[in-house]
Amino acid sequence: MPGVVYVVGAGPGDPELITVKGLRLLRSADVVLYDRLVSRELLREVKEGAELIYVGKAPGRHTLSQDEINRLLVEKARQGLVVVRLKGGDPYVFGRGEEECMYVRSHGIECIVVPGVTSAIAGPAYAGIPVTHRGLASSFAVATGREAEGKERRSVDYAALAKAADTLVILMGVGNLEKIVSELLDAGVDPGTPVAIVEDATLPTQRVTVAPLDRIVEEARRRGVRPPAVIVVGRVVELREKLWRLA
Amino acid sequence: MPGVVYVVGAGPGDPELITVKGLRLLRSADVVLYDRLVSRELLREVKEGAELIYVGKAPGRHTLSQDEINRLLVEKARQGLVVVRLKGGDPYVFGRGEEECMYVRSHGIECIVVPGVTSAIAGPAYAGIPVTHRGLASSFAVATGREAEGKERRSVDYAALAKAADTLVILMGVGNLEKIVSELLDAGVDPGTPVAIVEDATLPTQRVTVAPLDRIVEEARRRGVRPPAVIVVGRVVELREKLWRLA
Repeated sequence: MPGVVYVVGAGPGDPELITVKGLRLLRSADVVLYDRLVSRELLREVKEGAELIYVGKAPGRHTLSQDEINRLLVEKARQGLVVVRLKGGDPYVFGRGEEECMYVRSHGIECIVVPGVTSAIAGPAYAGIPVTHRGLASSFAVATGREAEGKERRSVDYAALAKAADTLVILMGVGNLEKIVSELLDAGVDPGTPVAIVEDATLPTQRVTVAPLDRIVEEARRRGVRPPAVIVVGRVVELREKLWRLA
Repeated sequence: MPGVVYVVGAGPGDPELITVKGLRLLRSADVVLYDRLVSRELLREVKEGAELIYVGKAPGRHTLSQDEINRLLVEKARQGLVVVRLKGGDPYVFGRGEEECMYVRSHGIECIVVPGVTSAIAGPAYAGIPVTHRGLASSFAVATGREAEGKERRSVDYAALAKAADTLVILMGVGNLEKIVSELLDAGVDPGTPVAIVEDATLPTQRVTVAPLDRIVEEARRRGVRPPAVIVVGRVVELREKLWRLA
């Protein structure tokens, strides 16, 4: 009897933002493969004797390649084990959950994806910023701040997204902040558009930096903004400043 | 001592997709104000004696206006009660959670928003469609299919969103499907772009309809597609068809 693989979204950081389903499966797991941004508190929920395998990427630390992770998922499931692949955020929001599940299924093993709360929405929310608002934002876009590897063409046109959507959320964008902001300004996005950067979103260490588009790079540098962080561009950022603190 | 209001996202439908935090608060509530799309199973989780108040909108049924909901939240909290405002999906994704919380806070009462899994991402996920995919989708946009009330200008440019983002997700769009599809085609979006419509997303009654953009209106009519449903436009829809079923 082959086992099964559950690819579970752990949520954005606050361990209580995992879903009831995700927690139930985590507690049932024989093996858990987990990423760098997964809460240590969640890992304490596993049953006695469960094997915990760290597969995250960290500078200077040897970890598994995506191929090795894929193979390990299949290997463990073939031993008849219940395997949980625990990922930060949602497995389908730049989480490569679909790649892992498709690989596992191509080997005849069941793989089920359990959605999670994404930091793209919950990160701004914990900073007092709704990604939509009646009258201010009827759409939002979410993009990765990194280029996909091995692609010839640019994968994301940040300026087109910022113009088409009322709110633009960028994940993993701190390293390319200056480049992204330049693109937006060069393309004619209003320099006064408010921008918020939410570091360590939903965690006790969360910190929020707010500035207009044409000053956010300088402000981020001054405050030493570092990853992981969620970047929000759009008028909804004003709600945090103008209305949210009124209580 | 005034009470407190928690605006909690119940998730997309599957009752197990509520967060651990959301369920904990729901169980602690003295009063729960809930919407139409909230799972009845979740309502069974409330403690004995808790008051359940239906405030959703349904055709032909008298329910509360937004102003009445706002006032009720404040009234109940002023009685020193723990109030949970339970909403389908995420309170900040077209959920008006920020309006309710800002109103409550403007009356000096604490209001805390608890994010939920949004149907914009989990709906496609339960249909085998990841909103992002390495190489296929580095960005996605989410828009309401309805116009915001009381606005002079069009709030959403669907064609601009479809061109700027690799994946376009439209919530509450079944009623305007024909109009939206015409806009996309008129603006030059590839008629062969795959579209999926996920009705009753994440529920046992879930049904998925897939067709190319230029045939989705006809196909939706033929199958009698009805709200609530999530519409996904983009190449990621192919993953469901081509790869996801390979196991």
